[in-house]
Amino acid sequence: MSDFVVGINPVKETLLHSSRQLLELWIVKEKLNERLDEIVGLAEQKHLPVRQVERRDLQRLAGQVPHQGVLLRVAAFIYSDLDDILSRWRASGNAAFFLLLDGVTDPHNFGAILRSAEQAGCQAVIVPKDRSCPVTAVVEKTAAGALSHISLCQVVNLSRAIDDLKKNGIWCYGLAGDAGASDLFLSDLRGNIGLIVGSEGRGIRPNVRSHCDGLLAIPMQGHLDSLNASVAVGIALFEVLRQNRQI
Amino acid sequence: MSDFVVGINPVKETLLHSSRQLLELWIVKEKLNERLDEIVGLAEQKHLPVRQVERRDLQRLAGQVPHQGVLLRVAAFIYSDLDDILSRWRASGNAAFFLLLDGVTDPHNFGAILRSAEQAGCQAVIVPKDRSCPVTAVVEKTAAGALSHISLCQVVNLSRAIDDLKKNGIWCYGLAGDAGASDLFLSDLRGNIGLIVGSEGRGIRPNVRSHCDGLLAIPMQGHLDSLNASVAVGIALFEVLRQNRQI
Repeated sequence: MSDFVVGINPVKETLLHSSRQLLELWIVKEKLNERLDEIVGLAEQKHLPVRQVERRDLQRLAGQVPHQGVLLRVAAFIYSDLDDILSRWRASGNAAFFLLLDGVTDPHNFGAILRSAEQAGCQAVIVPKDRSCPVTAVVEKTAAGALSHISLCQVVNLSRAIDDLKKNGIWCYGLAGDAGASDLFLSDLRGNIGLIVGSEGRGIRPNVRSHCDGLLAIPMQGHLDSLNASVAVGIALFEVLRQNRQI
Repeated sequence: MSDFVVGINPVKETLLHSSRQLLELWIVKEKLNERLDEIVGLAEQKHLPVRQVERRDLQRLAGQVPHQGVLLRVAAFIYSDLDDILSRWRASGNAAFFLLLDGVTDPHNFGAILRSAEQAGCQAVIVPKDRSCPVTAVVEKTAAGALSHISLCQVVNLSRAIDDLKKNGIWCYGLAGDAGASDLFLSDLRGNIGLIVGSEGRGIRPNVRSHCDGLLAIPMQGHLDSLNASVAVGIALFEVLRQNRQI
């Protein structure tokens, strides 16, 4: 299985930063400009096969995305399986710490959240198949290498995944700004924890929310409505770390 | 005093999101394209004077920045004075909570940090005159309105400002990733606090660092070097809030 990365900047970012296996560079069979030349140079440094193709062939593979004369074939991102993650956690003897994202679609936020999750000691990040940002070069760059160390798991149904965690003795809490939510800093977050975070605009879907054991809110002293999404998730992740680590 | 905002996107963002007083729109005396038309429409909705000028006049004012046919004159951002901020804090009877930024230059990080500071209950953010991001439309948008509620103070010398805070009984701690820094979550941050944060790449300058009462580090469990700058600042700000608030 392979994916295609399309366009000058995404291809360059992937060549420079992706941890995925790079397979082949496809480049337009024309006189190249400086930026395409640079990309060919990078590909050659990495001993990648470079294939010159007709503009119409690039067009066909790129579909609606503007290809700008270049396309990179990379190994498909390999998601982890939920059962495997749970088995590995049980075998580890450690407390569980999972992050579940319900509809985080901005690649910068997704990348920054993966980075925070890795640093806070999460074992895995779980996303729903149809409501998540794909793992693009922007995500990999913003994640700053986190995907080499943390498992990313795609599930068909996030509510069912929450039920699976609960059956395994993991407490599942949703991060929400609601008036009825418990104060993050006054909640007992010790032990096996799953933290559920919603989308930047709309929060956690009502159906997913109803599967949570409880809702948590970050107490705020200011006049604004909310925090930046990746900042809010970082605060919640490190509060779980603060309460759980052995000193 | 007034500032100029230059170029289609910055002008549009400022018209839509800035809390500053808008003074006058300057637009090129030619047939307008769709995007310039939209900007004139926005300016007219806000009852701004619109002045048609020669391309060379725009050029002269815009300098090196590509003006794309449009320029907006706005009231200069008004920074607060450090003495005023200290007087207001003393009169309030509350514990002091100030954030000092040494070299945060990325406008998205700067905006997100202002938003977090406001929500964590900081009274003011202090930046050095020559090592800070100016208050652009991107900053105002990312700050999501925080600048209407929090004081932003510009000082000539950040080390001297730290000494002023210390003379007023405010403990000044630098956020750093150093091995020798104290664990953020194990440090007593109750009382009057000034938190100093360095630039995204280089951290706090050695000279500024030597004026701090101590250094704090966020304990991390992962394999990466660091967190996203605005996430790290958010975690530190809310740890100060957690330890200080009256429940």
